[in-house]
Amino acid sequence: MQSSGWIEGLGLVAGSLTTVSYLPQAMKVWRSRSTHDISLLMFSLMALGTFLWLTYGILLGSPALIFANGTSLTLVTWIGWFKLRYG
Amino acid sequence: MQSSGWIEGLGLVAGSLTTVSYLPQAMKVWRSRSTHDISLLMFSLMALGTFLWLTYGILLGSPALIFANGTSLTLVTWIGWFKLRYG
Repeated sequence: MQSSGWIEGLGLVAGSLTTVSYLPQAMKVWRSRSTHDISLLMFSLMALGTFLWLTYGILLGSPALIFANGTSLTLVTWIGWFKLRYG
Repeated sequence: MQSSGWIEGLGLVAGSLTTVSYLPQAMKVWRSRSTHDISLLMFSLMALGTFLWLTYGILLGSPALIFANGTSLTLVTWIGWFKLRYG
């Protein structure tokens, strides 16, 4: 991938935000053990999609895509696991 | 961005999945009007991050990033609006 440094920087900020966004949700389900309003289908599709984004990022050699989707996949799986466990 | 057709195809499948994933969550809050277990901070950070991903995709000329993040931004904002309205 050919892109100037500041564009890749913008991608890393974007990736940091969308990745970090799962943290408050993960902490909320951890604390409350309540997942009634969360859609299991959302987090299942998100886990599969994030895995494919990660593959796409590796094939393109995009640091932003790899960083963001690797971490997101972990957090999304964590939230999905709580949903499975607590319903 | 230089990438072969099938890699861009993989990105479009990934983008379709992560984008479509917000739909069941949007429909769930629409039907139930219940958003107690949803983190407002998650959807606020996700909206900002998705906006920056969209900008990154435009600058790189990536159809997958533009398609995925344009639609996701709309759905994430919708879910966040329900959270603000129903608490």
